[in-house]
Amino acid sequence: MCRGDDVNCPDFETHFKAFKQEIDPGRRNFLRSGMLGAAAGAAGGLSLVTPALAQTSARNGPATPSFHYLPATAETVHWGYFSKTLSPRVEIDSGDFVTIETLTHHAADDLERMVQGDEGAESVYLWTKDKKGVERRGAGSTDPAVYKIGSGEGQGVHIMTGPVYVRGAEPGDVLEVRILDCTPRPSANPEFTGKSFGSNAAAWWGFHYNDMLNDAKREVITIYEVDATGDKSWAQAVYNFKWVPQTDPYGITHPTIDYPGVPVDHSLTSRNYDVLKGIRVPIRPHFGTLGVAPSEADFVDSVPPSYTGGNVDNWRIGKGATMYYPVAVDGALLSVGDPHASQGDSELCGTAIECSLTGTFQLILHKKADLGGTPLEEMDHPMLETQTEWLVHGFSVPNYLDTLGPTAQSDIYGKSSIDDAMRDAFRKMRKFLMTTKGLTEDEAHSLMSVGVDFGITQVVDGNWGVHAIVKKDIFAGRV
Amino acid sequence: MCRGDDVNCPDFETHFKAFKQEIDPGRRNFLRSGMLGAAAGAAGGLSLVTPALAQTSARNGPATPSFHYLPATAETVHWGYFSKTLSPRVEIDSGDFVTIETLTHHAADDLERMVQGDEGAESVYLWTKDKKGVERRGAGSTDPAVYKIGSGEGQGVHIMTGPVYVRGAEPGDVLEVRILDCTPRPSANPEFTGKSFGSNAAAWWGFHYNDMLNDAKREVITIYEVDATGDKSWAQAVYNFKWVPQTDPYGITHPTIDYPGVPVDHSLTSRNYDVLKGIRVPIRPHFGTLGVAPSEADFVDSVPPSYTGGNVDNWRIGKGATMYYPVAVDGALLSVGDPHASQGDSELCGTAIECSLTGTFQLILHKKADLGGTPLEEMDHPMLETQTEWLVHGFSVPNYLDTLGPTAQSDIYGKSSIDDAMRDAFRKMRKFLMTTKGLTEDEAHSLMSVGVDFGITQVVDGNWGVHAIVKKDIFAGRV
Repeated sequence: MCRGDDVNCPDFETHFKAFKQEIDPGRRNFLRSGMLGAAAGAAGGLSLVTPALAQTSARNGPATPSFHYLPATAETVHWGYFSKTLSPRVEIDSGDFVTIETLTHHAADDLERMVQGDEGAESVYLWTKDKKGVERRGAGSTDPAVYKIGSGEGQGVHIMTGPVYVRGAEPGDVLEVRILDCTPRPSANPEFTGKSFGSNAAAWWGFHYNDMLNDAKREVITIYEVDATGDKSWAQAVYNFKWVPQTDPYGITHPTIDYPGVPVDHSLTSRNYDVLKGIRVPIRPHFGTLGVAPSEADFVDSVPPSYTGGNVDNWRIGKGATMYYPVAVDGALLSVGDPHASQGDSELCGTAIECSLTGTFQLILHKKADLGGTPLEEMDHPMLETQTEWLVHGFSVPNYLDTLGPTAQSDIYGKSSIDDAMRDAFRKMRKFLMTTKGLTEDEAHSLMSVGVDFGITQVVDGNWGVHAIVKKDIFAGRV
Repeated sequence: MCRGDDVNCPDFETHFKAFKQEIDPGRRNFLRSGMLGAAAGAAGGLSLVTPALAQTSARNGPATPSFHYLPATAETVHWGYFSKTLSPRVEIDSGDFVTIETLTHHAADDLERMVQGDEGAESVYLWTKDKKGVERRGAGSTDPAVYKIGSGEGQGVHIMTGPVYVRGAEPGDVLEVRILDCTPRPSANPEFTGKSFGSNAAAWWGFHYNDMLNDAKREVITIYEVDATGDKSWAQAVYNFKWVPQTDPYGITHPTIDYPGVPVDHSLTSRNYDVLKGIRVPIRPHFGTLGVAPSEADFVDSVPPSYTGGNVDNWRIGKGATMYYPVAVDGALLSVGDPHASQGDSELCGTAIECSLTGTFQLILHKKADLGGTPLEEMDHPMLETQTEWLVHGFSVPNYLDTLGPTAQSDIYGKSSIDDAMRDAFRKMRKFLMTTKGLTEDEAHSLMSVGVDFGITQVVDGNWGVHAIVKKDIFAGRV
């Protein structure tokens, strides 16, 4: 089943070459028609990118796009933060394609299923008493004399692959990110051939945590199995276990899930295989965290989503979706991680089915100077476009890094509010309908009430989220 | 297009007779198989009603169900409140079918399109300097010496048809309400043949109201046209106008939309026909307000939804859906109103497309003594079942009448919170998964995070709402 995206496949190199050839635009006639070119999807008002803008933006990259492959290794990931200070892991031109491996930060919940035998994952998760594959995990202190639970303090948890540097990108531009593919990473352990695995942690930061029956306090991890052969459209639970204090290889004990990648010693846990029997969770493979580097701070906790995207945690950010981000730093510095096999709106207990995925993306740069009069003009927040819908993302504090000042990264966790996120989503959708669709304010208010759906994206990421969905065919009758 | 449900059709009586014959279970073979009997839908775990309970509950009504027709007239509606003190407008047995006409309380926004020539609507909306068709509107004072803006004070706004008394229903029972049909009420004005109309008021109680651009304050009403011939699946705007002070026939002036049914004098308004051109709002005909009488107070404001249902304002409560309500008073006293042609999740600006509809319902009584061990045991909140999903409804204050005490009906408007409604929805869904599906608490937490979607039902009814959706086929693999 390897399509050139499974580095563990014995024939990876052959498959990878075939895959490259397949999408090499010089080799296939259909590409000459522009089907996968920068203008794709722009016709008929289906895209936020007007045909004219698409044509203009096509000039931001070479005539023939290139393909890049970014595996996930200790050298290509950063763990727990976005940072404008990072060196690019790959440099690409606008219009280029890039396949990016992403690793879940919950793979250490079952190393046997999610890490063992997987060279990339092993390099990232390496942790002995002398060495960590990735030392820093989080935006916190890296000074051993200061930090308490580990380098970076787990202030931010996601393993992010990247950043991808997009040549020519500057603050004020908009980066269009097309998700062309998104597939589960198969277990490299021969015992689990044809399967992928994910972990769901019902953790202390979950919405349920202070509201458990009988005032109990416990964290419970459920390991899910995801079919990697393409046969089954659902995930199913394998076993669950209660978190018990785990001592990491450096000797620090973690009574709760307070630091990412702590290897779980299952000789200490009690695994319960009688869990969610017969329950089929429909899979919705997507990237929980995808975005560009913010300008406001050198190291930014990966947990709270913001105007540059990041941990938006909308399950609709999967195959076929397009995201638009305002570029905040030179090169945009796109990173992707927090892969999910599935998630419900709200991500109630703190996590999704956290499952390594590999994505293929096309990145298209739209220069600020070209945005005037187009739907992307002055877009200062992450927008999602699917085949049939446009979505805006509201947050408790839209640009918390700017609004809350120097202590923003701790203060945001005290600002969590669906009510505030709803207000932000309402304002963003109103602006979208007025600027992009040319409605008056009164028209926008009415349409939002009768034809726009507001849902709860997540209530677990500090900066809580509400999304608003407007269906494209609402505008079908316009002439 | 009249199927025996359009009293304005010249051949109504013939059609009505044919309709009755069609559903008379003595006359059709397929009914002998029980397809529309009390057990319908219970097979295969598709319903919250187990086959055994369906069989038991079938004994609560006669072997042959009857059909009833409840038109909307000044005599069959109550306006703006639920009340356990009301005399039944129709008495039925468990299993009976009842077609109920409902009128939108916004028809006076355009009397020409939504009232004129419609005998039922005219009787309800009648208001001269000497007489109102329905004097009391709301749960407030009816003493002319006390009230300020009108009898009932507009504390509650919906025109409710009913109540329907279900013989044998007692507190502790559960009433199953199947919505078999739901169709727009055609305009009775020959000028508008084949069309229905609805009104959307962006009003002072809307979520947007204190957040308008340039700190403006205005209420805007948009009149929508809905196809009544069955040809078009969308509604479109006809015109909008800004609310200007209106003086009602009793001489009281209403500077804002503060009392329902005030006839709008369009010689005072400025109608703008250049509105939402080419915008097609997909129709989702449903009943905004449907529920049974609460026991806590004699007159209960129809605006805040509660444990007995009422103004839940979920657009999924339409044709094909089934609602379950805990019975709070003898006879259940079901009323229905607030018909909507369409609404988005959140009902942002205060109202939906408020459009008169006629519904056909089957009501089935499940006695408390029979509920033990079934999914309906101890169900103390309104639940929604569609063909593919189960939904619970969370509110800012689940049973506000009880929780907030004697001043509940005014205090609830100070308790509006999506955050609190989310917590209630979470708790209700957890309970549902644990009691109905037999999951452990930990299983429920995990499943809610990875396979249940939480959405914002409404943010305009005082007691704000969040719904949680679980898809039935998640349980498809259970044996």
